[in-house]
Amino acid sequence: MTNLDSLFNPKSIAVIGVSDNTTKLGTIIYNNIISEGYEGRVYPVNPNYKEIFGNKCYPKVGCISDAVEVAVIVIPSQFVFDVIKDCAEKKVKYAIIISAGFSETGKEGKKLEEKIVAYASKNGLRILGPNCLGIAVTRNKLDATFAAQDIEEGNIAFVSQSGAFNTALLDLAMKKNLGFSHFVSLGNKSDLNELDFLEHWLKDDRIKVIGMYIEEFENGRDLLELIRKNSLKPVVVLHPGETQEAQKAISSHTGSLAGSSIITRTALQQYGIIQVDGIEKMFNTLMILSYSKKTKGDKVAIITNAGGPGIIMTDEIVKAGLKLAEPTEKSRKLLKKSLPAAASVNNPIDIIGDAQADRYNTALNIAIKDQNIDSIICLLSPQIVTQIEETAKLLINFSLTGEKPVIPVFIGGRYIEAGLERLYNNKIASFDSPENAIYALKKLTDYSLISSRLKVASSDSIFKGESKYSNEILKYLSDKSTPLPENLVRKLASEVNFDLPKEAVVKNIDEAILFANKTRYPLVLKASTEDISHKTDFKALFLNISNENELQSAYIQLKKNIYNATNNKSPIILVQEQIRADEELIIGTNRDGDSLVYNNGKGFGHIVLFGKGGIYTEVYKDTSTGLVPMSRNQIMEMIDKTKISTVVKGTRGLQALAYEKLIDTIESVQKLVLLYPEIESIDINPAMITKERCVAVDIKIFVRK
Amino acid sequence: MTNLDSLFNPKSIAVIGVSDNTTKLGTIIYNNIISEGYEGRVYPVNPNYKEIFGNKCYPKVGCISDAVEVAVIVIPSQFVFDVIKDCAEKKVKYAIIISAGFSETGKEGKKLEEKIVAYASKNGLRILGPNCLGIAVTRNKLDATFAAQDIEEGNIAFVSQSGAFNTALLDLAMKKNLGFSHFVSLGNKSDLNELDFLEHWLKDDRIKVIGMYIEEFENGRDLLELIRKNSLKPVVVLHPGETQEAQKAISSHTGSLAGSSIITRTALQQYGIIQVDGIEKMFNTLMILSYSKKTKGDKVAIITNAGGPGIIMTDEIVKAGLKLAEPTEKSRKLLKKSLPAAASVNNPIDIIGDAQADRYNTALNIAIKDQNIDSIICLLSPQIVTQIEETAKLLINFSLTGEKPVIPVFIGGRYIEAGLERLYNNKIASFDSPENAIYALKKLTDYSLISSRLKVASSDSIFKGESKYSNEILKYLSDKSTPLPENLVRKLASEVNFDLPKEAVVKNIDEAILFANKTRYPLVLKASTEDISHKTDFKALFLNISNENELQSAYIQLKKNIYNATNNKSPIILVQEQIRADEELIIGTNRDGDSLVYNNGKGFGHIVLFGKGGIYTEVYKDTSTGLVPMSRNQIMEMIDKTKISTVVKGTRGLQALAYEKLIDTIESVQKLVLLYPEIESIDINPAMITKERCVAVDIKIFVRK
Repeated sequence: MTNLDSLFNPKSIAVIGVSDNTTKLGTIIYNNIISEGYEGRVYPVNPNYKEIFGNKCYPKVGCISDAVEVAVIVIPSQFVFDVIKDCAEKKVKYAIIISAGFSETGKEGKKLEEKIVAYASKNGLRILGPNCLGIAVTRNKLDATFAAQDIEEGNIAFVSQSGAFNTALLDLAMKKNLGFSHFVSLGNKSDLNELDFLEHWLKDDRIKVIGMYIEEFENGRDLLELIRKNSLKPVVVLHPGETQEAQKAISSHTGSLAGSSIITRTALQQYGIIQVDGIEKMFNTLMILSYSKKTKGDKVAIITNAGGPGIIMTDEIVKAGLKLAEPTEKSRKLLKKSLPAAASVNNPIDIIGDAQADRYNTALNIAIKDQNIDSIICLLSPQIVTQIEETAKLLINFSLTGEKPVIPVFIGGRYIEAGLERLYNNKIASFDSPENAIYALKKLTDYSLISSRLKVASSDSIFKGESKYSNEILKYLSDKSTPLPENLVRKLASEVNFDLPKEAVVKNIDEAILFANKTRYPLVLKASTEDISHKTDFKALFLNISNENELQSAYIQLKKNIYNATNNKSPIILVQEQIRADEELIIGTNRDGDSLVYNNGKGFGHIVLFGKGGIYTEVYKDTSTGLVPMSRNQIMEMIDKTKISTVVKGTRGLQALAYEKLIDTIESVQKLVLLYPEIESIDINPAMITKERCVAVDIKIFVRK
Repeated sequence: MTNLDSLFNPKSIAVIGVSDNTTKLGTIIYNNIISEGYEGRVYPVNPNYKEIFGNKCYPKVGCISDAVEVAVIVIPSQFVFDVIKDCAEKKVKYAIIISAGFSETGKEGKKLEEKIVAYASKNGLRILGPNCLGIAVTRNKLDATFAAQDIEEGNIAFVSQSGAFNTALLDLAMKKNLGFSHFVSLGNKSDLNELDFLEHWLKDDRIKVIGMYIEEFENGRDLLELIRKNSLKPVVVLHPGETQEAQKAISSHTGSLAGSSIITRTALQQYGIIQVDGIEKMFNTLMILSYSKKTKGDKVAIITNAGGPGIIMTDEIVKAGLKLAEPTEKSRKLLKKSLPAAASVNNPIDIIGDAQADRYNTALNIAIKDQNIDSIICLLSPQIVTQIEETAKLLINFSLTGEKPVIPVFIGGRYIEAGLERLYNNKIASFDSPENAIYALKKLTDYSLISSRLKVASSDSIFKGESKYSNEILKYLSDKSTPLPENLVRKLASEVNFDLPKEAVVKNIDEAILFANKTRYPLVLKASTEDISHKTDFKALFLNISNENELQSAYIQLKKNIYNATNNKSPIILVQEQIRADEELIIGTNRDGDSLVYNNGKGFGHIVLFGKGGIYTEVYKDTSTGLVPMSRNQIMEMIDKTKISTVVKGTRGLQALAYEKLIDTIESVQKLVLLYPEIESIDINPAMITKERCVAVDIKIFVRK
């Protein structure tokens, strides 16, 4: 684990590139550090000044007599290398390179960046950036960023690959009074990356929530391993690039290739990482996780002074996958007794338009004791007699003291502002629209429920085996995707016990009939791969052979066809049982990045894909994915996310198909890529499932270094 | 058309229920009318006062010597009827009943409300409300509402069934400076409803946009007819109740049954009505339609000073179904020349973090001339050198003068506030998050594109026919859903030329063979409905009969089975061609409300449903719907919305199926319900489609009064 103590709380900081021009970034950072009241020593460095703002200015870091732990570098990129050398000589521990003009600008910049990092790492100097906004650690009163926004103290640690995302989030935080413990801009993350910070923060008890904006993850497997070992603290991630267009934009933004979005999302989801997809959504999710209590379940009650908006809220709750709570009989009786006749005592609990704070109080007191209710939305619209600030005060009290989340949602604009401001100032997770509130509440609920049952399959449980065909595979291994030949695929399939169609190579019709008598009709007769690969097209496949007569005539015909096409008089002919599938499925796997050895790989490794196969594969795209390794339970969860799983499991009056055999097949796929990480992809399409079997009819395997 | 002039601009208003207590609703409304500077005469009425705020107070409306056009009634519900009588005698034209305590409270209240309406309508008095917020008409400086919010003048007319929705929207409007021409609260809409206002507003050229919050639509067909005749003006509707839970909440809120959500949504969508599903979304959609120019297409460019948020914006654009514009080569060259080297000249056009207003200006000047770009998002994050207000000024200029929509999106909180405020004050549709901006831009784009091509099938095109089986249907018509018998279904099916499986009733095996020779194998043999309905279960259906031998043995076996079960020695046996479907589809229709005669019906009439049938019907729920009547083009659009349509049309290398025949079948369903509106539902499941035919294998028809 990287020791970040010196970076977070340096005894002394040098700022390289300070001048007397207060609009320059170097000066802004220097002034930010000073004005926030940082208690360590701060040294301005600039060869052109003897003194800056009354303080002695140094020509270079080496001239500072004191030890320097952190250097903040804010000078044009072409001068950075020399300063880095200077810092290394001075035994500076961390250099924060604010300057732009490196890998984000193209090849030249990339070379320069690599040169700097290579030199630094040889000399024990770690680098944050370049091309970053800086770092802030509120508990140490350290603000070494050039953000104009003040950063308040709080329990959220945030790291981001986009400086602009950071400033927007900070600006919102300033308005709504959300606090952070750490605020880090990674820039080009030439050296320090999100994992260095994550590892530190997961172990820091004063941090309650971790947020990350990451366009490309480094070392995906390491990230997951960190999370697996510390899965109780909520980690919220915004990983843009769901669409191809956005992935292209990422490439042009960061100068490198974006990873596969679906693999990343699958991996994050499987490890209980909370994913959001917008700036406001990130903010609201951080806020609710920072302030609110966990919820015990997904049943939500609405207390509202507004009928129509209560209905809109109901739609939002159900559409988000939460449940509308059903208050107990007792609660309803109590509500009926205490509320006006026109009120509705079901959920939404409509305390009607003339409700003042006392009526919210009445309803809340009942709802908060109701065991059928897990969380409470308090919806307020600014009607003529509404006591906006009084109600806010009341809700602050209930939020802070109650045992379940009480979430104020004040809808409107002008008049509700004072109410919301009071709520934000008192650290209550509050919202100005039903959509935003329910989005955040859903994240809180998911987190509350998942964190109590998250069982990630550990890498210790990785299947170990002999990998006895590694040498054979080696022959096909190169930088390009290469398909394995049929016979090697068969060997691998047998090694992990795939259920394959029974088949035999037959030399004459008698052998074919012998096979037919041992197996069952219908059968398939086909030419060998060798003969088929011959140039001339010919009918090489006979399906639906249902009795001995048909077998004989098909055999004769096929032999004739092969002879006509290839002149081969004694061809190899394959006879195979024909599977009548109840459902055609697709099972596959794909590898992300270079995962030959997971620990050194950049990507997340293999994911398994499962779904409806056959002609509907592309029509319904009914698939789900899971990251290898999965426990048997996780495989079931993956299957159950598809719609076709209802057919496999035999709901709706249909007989169940071989669900357990399907799980076996997926486990076999998983075993195969764990035995042979050089496998880049496996494609079983179709896998034929019947009431008794799950047969891998057509298997394709590609390998790549 | 209801003449609303007196309601919108009365020469004189009486407010019944004014007192000297300024917190009472009556007084608030009276003061609102006065303080807004309404120019007509205003009379306070209250028997307990001689004078109010220095003005003469009248004991009752009848005592006012002048004519009174509008009475605003704000007294307890039990006294309202007497006041209404008084108003009617005084020849008041409109009574706005603010008071609650009517149908929303239960049976008693409903009775009272009905009594009032009956009396009023007999005496030429129209009623708005009861249980409403009132009405405001800004151009006449009339604010007869008890909302605390000021209502600014603008080109949006808004009508709502929820007072709370209105106040929340007004509060937002007050903060963001959005103006309205009319603002109407319908309350219980005992008399005047949304149609009265819609009709008026569609014809008023000073109104650019109409907004409605409606929980239940009255007279759906009338609404559509109004829209059809005036389809150029945007109408934005929030109709909550997508989920069953919300529908339940509507029932308890309005005291009556909610209509079918899917039928309503289908109808609104088909007639180009813009649907939104949240308060903020309603606000943002009204704002963009009120301020912005139409767009010529769906290609969006992003100009941004923030790389990460630009990527998020890209995801939002593509996910919303808009397109990321590709700037022309010329634009890219120009951008390259004028922007810093680190900028990205693709889309997103990243003018990087240190961009000031001039750089936005440069990029905008290029983008606004690019014919590959239909609308421009200007994304700004508050970085250290960002000129927030300068940039806002620039964008105001571009928005007002440019030919395409220029949409500012300022992300953040505190520092961007001043910029947004300036934009709002200058009537520029602006947003504080990518999600909100793209939601609204999508609505503007949909509206811009649909309004130029909206061709609604008019009721004049309704198929007229003989309805020759009306008398036979009459026998089955009652208040309950009743299935029509098989023979009548066959007659109706023939009348509209459904393609049915060929079949014959045969009395002996020779007749069956004769049929087989005329038709084709495979065949189906089955017992008559009469025999099947016999109590004993027996095998009455033989499928897959593929030659004469099989036909003979099946015939003998079936005859034996019938005899064993029923003792019937000469049964009627049905022989039918068996259709081998390439796809099983489902085609159906359902009626909303009482539509025997559309013009008097409350609902929207019939919708047609089309989709994937067979065992996947419930699994994939791959269906779409359209409102009757549809043109052939609209039917095609409906089909093409499903995923299975790709299979029917033969994309992805599969041969096309009988698409035209499918359209014929749907047209036939439509004809049938137009001929016989007493049909409540038709269910064709499956409809078997092959490469040549679309066969209605199993048809069920229900009728109801």
